[in-house]
Amino acid sequence: MDAQNSIDALDQLLRSDESISPAEAKTLQRYLEDPPIQDIVRLVERYQGSRAAVALRLLPRRRAIEVFDALDPAHQADLIGALQNREVFEFFDELDPDDRVSLLDELPAEIAERLMRNLEPSERDITGVVLGYPKGSVGRRMSPEVPSLFVDLTVDEALTVLKKSADDVETIYSLPVISRDRRLEGICSLREIFTAPSGTRLEEIVTKPVVANAHDDAEETARWFLPLDFLALPVVDDSNRLVGLLTADDAHDIVEEEDTEDSARIGGSEPLQQPYLSTPLMRIVRSRVVWLLVLAVSALLTVKVLDTFEETLEQAIVLSLFIPLLTGTGGNTGNQAATTVTRALALGDVRTGDVLSVMWREVRVGFTLGALLGILGFVLASVIYSLPLGIVMGTTLLAICTMSATVGGIMPLIAKTCGADPAVFSNPFISTFCDATGLIIYFFIARTVLGI
Amino acid sequence: MDAQNSIDALDQLLRSDESISPAEAKTLQRYLEDPPIQDIVRLVERYQGSRAAVALRLLPRRRAIEVFDALDPAHQADLIGALQNREVFEFFDELDPDDRVSLLDELPAEIAERLMRNLEPSERDITGVVLGYPKGSVGRRMSPEVPSLFVDLTVDEALTVLKKSADDVETIYSLPVISRDRRLEGICSLREIFTAPSGTRLEEIVTKPVVANAHDDAEETARWFLPLDFLALPVVDDSNRLVGLLTADDAHDIVEEEDTEDSARIGGSEPLQQPYLSTPLMRIVRSRVVWLLVLAVSALLTVKVLDTFEETLEQAIVLSLFIPLLTGTGGNTGNQAATTVTRALALGDVRTGDVLSVMWREVRVGFTLGALLGILGFVLASVIYSLPLGIVMGTTLLAICTMSATVGGIMPLIAKTCGADPAVFSNPFISTFCDATGLIIYFFIARTVLGI
Repeated sequence: MDAQNSIDALDQLLRSDESISPAEAKTLQRYLEDPPIQDIVRLVERYQGSRAAVALRLLPRRRAIEVFDALDPAHQADLIGALQNREVFEFFDELDPDDRVSLLDELPAEIAERLMRNLEPSERDITGVVLGYPKGSVGRRMSPEVPSLFVDLTVDEALTVLKKSADDVETIYSLPVISRDRRLEGICSLREIFTAPSGTRLEEIVTKPVVANAHDDAEETARWFLPLDFLALPVVDDSNRLVGLLTADDAHDIVEEEDTEDSARIGGSEPLQQPYLSTPLMRIVRSRVVWLLVLAVSALLTVKVLDTFEETLEQAIVLSLFIPLLTGTGGNTGNQAATTVTRALALGDVRTGDVLSVMWREVRVGFTLGALLGILGFVLASVIYSLPLGIVMGTTLLAICTMSATVGGIMPLIAKTCGADPAVFSNPFISTFCDATGLIIYFFIARTVLGI
Repeated sequence: MDAQNSIDALDQLLRSDESISPAEAKTLQRYLEDPPIQDIVRLVERYQGSRAAVALRLLPRRRAIEVFDALDPAHQADLIGALQNREVFEFFDELDPDDRVSLLDELPAEIAERLMRNLEPSERDITGVVLGYPKGSVGRRMSPEVPSLFVDLTVDEALTVLKKSADDVETIYSLPVISRDRRLEGICSLREIFTAPSGTRLEEIVTKPVVANAHDDAEETARWFLPLDFLALPVVDDSNRLVGLLTADDAHDIVEEEDTEDSARIGGSEPLQQPYLSTPLMRIVRSRVVWLLVLAVSALLTVKVLDTFEETLEQAIVLSLFIPLLTGTGGNTGNQAATTVTRALALGDVRTGDVLSVMWREVRVGFTLGALLGILGFVLASVIYSLPLGIVMGTTLLAICTMSATVGGIMPLIAKTCGADPAVFSNPFISTFCDATGLIIYFFIARTVLGI
């Protein structure tokens, strides 16, 4: 049995829901030593709680821990219900403090408490530090286990300290250097320590650090920190004392979660927090139903608008033919602007203070797009229907595109200013809004031009 | 002048378009030594070519290079037109080979050639290696400058080699170990080398590496590699010879670009490839106009559908009032499913082979959502209008939601199977498709129930 076959055998087993003899389990376990760990993670991610638990039990102990570690907190929480206490304690114990806290957030209070009680006191303390910071803050996502290098050490002494502590800390490559009272003095890379002439004091090679405060927003910090290509960012408290490190992979996890959340919200649903296939069906329904209802109710606005213009419609039923085309185009133009600006906001390319520059850009972009579509609409409608209808279509498209791009561009900024998630306002909401206003524009223009 | 003030002074200057005396420039330059580099990058990213070039010239030389290095390739390309040859050569020379190649891709062929000619032969060779791999492959994004550790070295010898080469290579923390004929034997971390007892041979501590082939897809590789929290991934050719390293920050850049691209396409536009505010206006228009036209033309389908049912509409004008509500709800349900599945595909949680499981999940999710909305629609329309209209609304919502969720869920998978970008099919296209089919369903149900 080669590596791929052992993965396939495991997949088969999980899919079939059959039981397996202890001897077979042992054989499979031996073969599961070989396949690359990421392939096993990928497989386990596809199964819900009890099935995923079977997989973890079949894996060699060390690998089971690695796999559990790599799962999303919501998925870990699902699994915990299907595992035995002994297994749960072991997995929980092996997590890094920041991952432990993410999992605790997903668990019912009583289970969370029991897990905390079963931790070793030192681990419990360090987990408590992370738990002490608010959700969404850097402190909540940092690794509190930091190697301490004092600024008055020589590089040789520093190397000795590092050799001793290498096993306990998350990284020894990016090293905060502190004063004797734990104030951050700067940062040193192992590379620098390693290449400096013997006898050099750390204070000679330490560089001014890029730092974050433990209370800073985790997403914002991760976004500006990652492009700098550092391995880790020292985290300090308000009196500049070192409290932890945010590693690049922690920062990457934060960014990826936020991107997944934005992508879900742009699509008009709440994020699932775990892989699609392992999410229980009802949780998917719940992630969508609220937004769908809210949007349907706000779409009643379009019913109201059309009701108001029912007389116009009766007189020129042909106008109704273009309703989905016009509302669709308005929605598309608005979405284009909104998703662009939402992404730019997330990446930090645009700030809420830029609302006027964004608006002015989008007015011009929307007008240009509207002019192009308007000309096309004018020609088509004039040829197929009549000149007056061509004029209605042309001017309506111009007006709708300009309006939608402008609204789409500034809505995410307004949302952010009000403290809401820009992604929520960046797609279906814009569509619904543009639908209603677009229809009003359409019927006003039609009434004027057609003289109804 | 403190750090923030010097940034503000620079911003003022760039915004005002005024010139500055050489003495003032010198003073500003001195102060610009202080602010954190990420703040300067953020500022420069907000200005187009010639203005951004002014900023780079005002920065201390070392910092200007760092800033240029941090910009997007498309923005770098814009800048190159505004810089002097000498500056261009210097910036280009300082880029890593993989970043150099990304920039070359954005430049007109003759400029790209001139830049390559001006490189030192060794740098040109190493850039040529990266250029030799196809776009979108791991080889195109890897760092070809790899420290070589031979498997028969002792850890002490290895440390000596590393000390010597520390300045030339991208990372010394994650180290591929090779045989004398450059075949990859395994991987070692500096931490392991560093903590092993003196005299240990590398072959005793080397671990089986997780590797990528230089021809593998860059996005897929980056997606599975990042969650493993390794610092770097050895890249090999078809005969298992080491050709480079993909570092975690390269992988992060790849993922972020792809997420930006997906976000743009889901919103129905092409990615800008550079920060929003520094993108020329006409490039924004171009990024949107094609999709907008394609979508408008496909929306002609809805005109055609409504044209077919014009008689029905004339007999019951009230039906037209619900058109935007129904098409909107269908679009929303479809988008929810499509964005969820598109993201799951991007993250590797779902594969194209999962089309049946996804379909079956979405049929049930769509039916549940449709039932909830349908009951609501039935009650509202019965009370406000009439019982028959209530029945029409209820059954139409049920049918549209089931259909839209199913189509929305499987479209991205079909797109991927056909080699298209799933994100393109995941939003406006779904809306347009669901609009047309939703209308057909609506009028069929209406005709049957109302007996028109």
